[in-house]
Amino acid sequence: MQENLQVQLAHTPEGNPEPEHFQVVPTPMPQPDDGQVLCATQYLSLDPYMRSQMAGRHMSGTVSSGELMRGETISKVIESKHPDFAVGDIVRCFGNWQQYSVHKASELSKQSPKISPMSYGLSLLGMPGLTAYAGLIWIAKPKANDVVLIPAATGAVGSTAGQLAKLHGCRVIGIAGSDEKCAHAINNLGYDACINRKTEDLAERLNELCPDGVDIYFDLVGGETLNTVCNKLALNARVILCGLMEDYNKPTRTPGPMPGPIIGARATLTGLVVYDWEPRRDEFITDCLSHIGSGKLTMQEDIAHGINNAPAAFCRLMNGENRGKALVKIASE
Amino acid sequence: MQENLQVQLAHTPEGNPEPEHFQVVPTPMPQPDDGQVLCATQYLSLDPYMRSQMAGRHMSGTVSSGELMRGETISKVIESKHPDFAVGDIVRCFGNWQQYSVHKASELSKQSPKISPMSYGLSLLGMPGLTAYAGLIWIAKPKANDVVLIPAATGAVGSTAGQLAKLHGCRVIGIAGSDEKCAHAINNLGYDACINRKTEDLAERLNELCPDGVDIYFDLVGGETLNTVCNKLALNARVILCGLMEDYNKPTRTPGPMPGPIIGARATLTGLVVYDWEPRRDEFITDCLSHIGSGKLTMQEDIAHGINNAPAAFCRLMNGENRGKALVKIASE
Repeated sequence: MQENLQVQLAHTPEGNPEPEHFQVVPTPMPQPDDGQVLCATQYLSLDPYMRSQMAGRHMSGTVSSGELMRGETISKVIESKHPDFAVGDIVRCFGNWQQYSVHKASELSKQSPKISPMSYGLSLLGMPGLTAYAGLIWIAKPKANDVVLIPAATGAVGSTAGQLAKLHGCRVIGIAGSDEKCAHAINNLGYDACINRKTEDLAERLNELCPDGVDIYFDLVGGETLNTVCNKLALNARVILCGLMEDYNKPTRTPGPMPGPIIGARATLTGLVVYDWEPRRDEFITDCLSHIGSGKLTMQEDIAHGINNAPAAFCRLMNGENRGKALVKIASE
Repeated sequence: MQENLQVQLAHTPEGNPEPEHFQVVPTPMPQPDDGQVLCATQYLSLDPYMRSQMAGRHMSGTVSSGELMRGETISKVIESKHPDFAVGDIVRCFGNWQQYSVHKASELSKQSPKISPMSYGLSLLGMPGLTAYAGLIWIAKPKANDVVLIPAATGAVGSTAGQLAKLHGCRVIGIAGSDEKCAHAINNLGYDACINRKTEDLAERLNELCPDGVDIYFDLVGGETLNTVCNKLALNARVILCGLMEDYNKPTRTPGPMPGPIIGARATLTGLVVYDWEPRRDEFITDCLSHIGSGKLTMQEDIAHGINNAPAAFCRLMNGENRGKALVKIASE
């Protein structure tokens, strides 16, 4: 009988996760009941929030030792006992870190064939893209010539937000973890400047690059970076609070920005959770497809191959070694 | 020749200010040039931000040793060399801590005789009232049944915000520094509950009083109170960042709230500086006059008498010993 390889958390890591914190385990092939659908995972999305689930600090719940790692997937229907789905349909679901998954119809969203490559449903036109779009366009409302600052500038959310900001006529400054990433941000993603957070002083560089302050800060990292930026806000600045990457590998969380400078800047800080914007996904996809068609919006994907390589790919992501959206290709299309 | 008594800062205090940090000094009577107006101070407003000016940490600038203390006043024109102002006009201006002041016409705003008592132009219908109105009504946009939490609940801004929130059908919880103030909040200002911050545990009491969280937090104090409340926010909560009372007497400022719970609550934090809302002052006064007329909006004023008593009154304010808006009556009306 065919088996279903899945990746489980073996031990909860203390600091940065390593491949030995995971185990690849053969499990029985799942079988769909009436009303259910059997899917073969095509692409698995790897995301920083998973580290928070492992630590028991994420709103979506905890992944404990011995439990299947969770994640969003693009999957293909290979057996259907529900009238709305046919063999061969491409769907988006939480198929998790495994080769096969069974779902109720309500857990599946059909993916339009307009989304090409298929993996864009997890990257540029998926949750990272929707996160960038909701934060930048719907919450921060960029105006021409706004100074937009984006940490994790070359990551999935950051690179999308950066390109969208350029499309809106903003001056876009990135923060990234290496000279190579900074060069990529400037040369391929259209950033006007990019600060190497490991070799440059952020506060000093912001004083040089945007002496009038930051109009929009799309915070994907929290930690000291957030606090430094909140001292450099322009009048009526908008800060999107969206991720805590700097703290994900730490045992405790960094205190937040002091209110004084936020008051002085008349700034607005808004918490963003992408799930809230799901009802507007079609609107976002339609707008972005036009920019993709004209070549002004792209996504670099960092695709590992095979379920066995998912743990190493996740560890690379958490060490900042990925190049673009981290995905694992599980089955051949 | 008649003299002009003024209060100067004698020594910058380290912690809580004491009367000996100030000096009352006779100075020559000021004389208006052409185009200027001489005013006799009627009422002087005492406000916590003055402590920040003394420490050199306020956006409006620093008051150093030997300098005149600054402040907003209701003043009466006693000599005019400008055609727009006549002797007897009541004006609002920054007359500072002194008996007489000279101004250009552009520094004066005529006060409507509808504002009665005259001192309301510095309290309920003045900067504290406008602060409360802008934060609660224009920024936070209260809905019926919202849980509204207000620290410094019986102070000038807090008591106005509390009454306005009740007028909008909210459930209003105060925080105050004594049982007496809590009783005043509930019995006279219409608060549904009030937490004594000196004898009760804020986090515990919030769990009891609003288990579903705080919808609107009108932050007038910063410090640990802000951080505690930011862990108790309801979904889509609005936080108005407006004051730092807890930190004004401290040498350093407390770190701010961590972003994680703010993201989880999809909360919005907005910095409020009352000067930005000056163009909408008439709209605010018109709305509030109707509520004053119907007896649903009042302001307790804590009025000291005579310029010599301004330092002691300010120290009482900074020790939380005032009862309502702190004012000094300088001249007889």
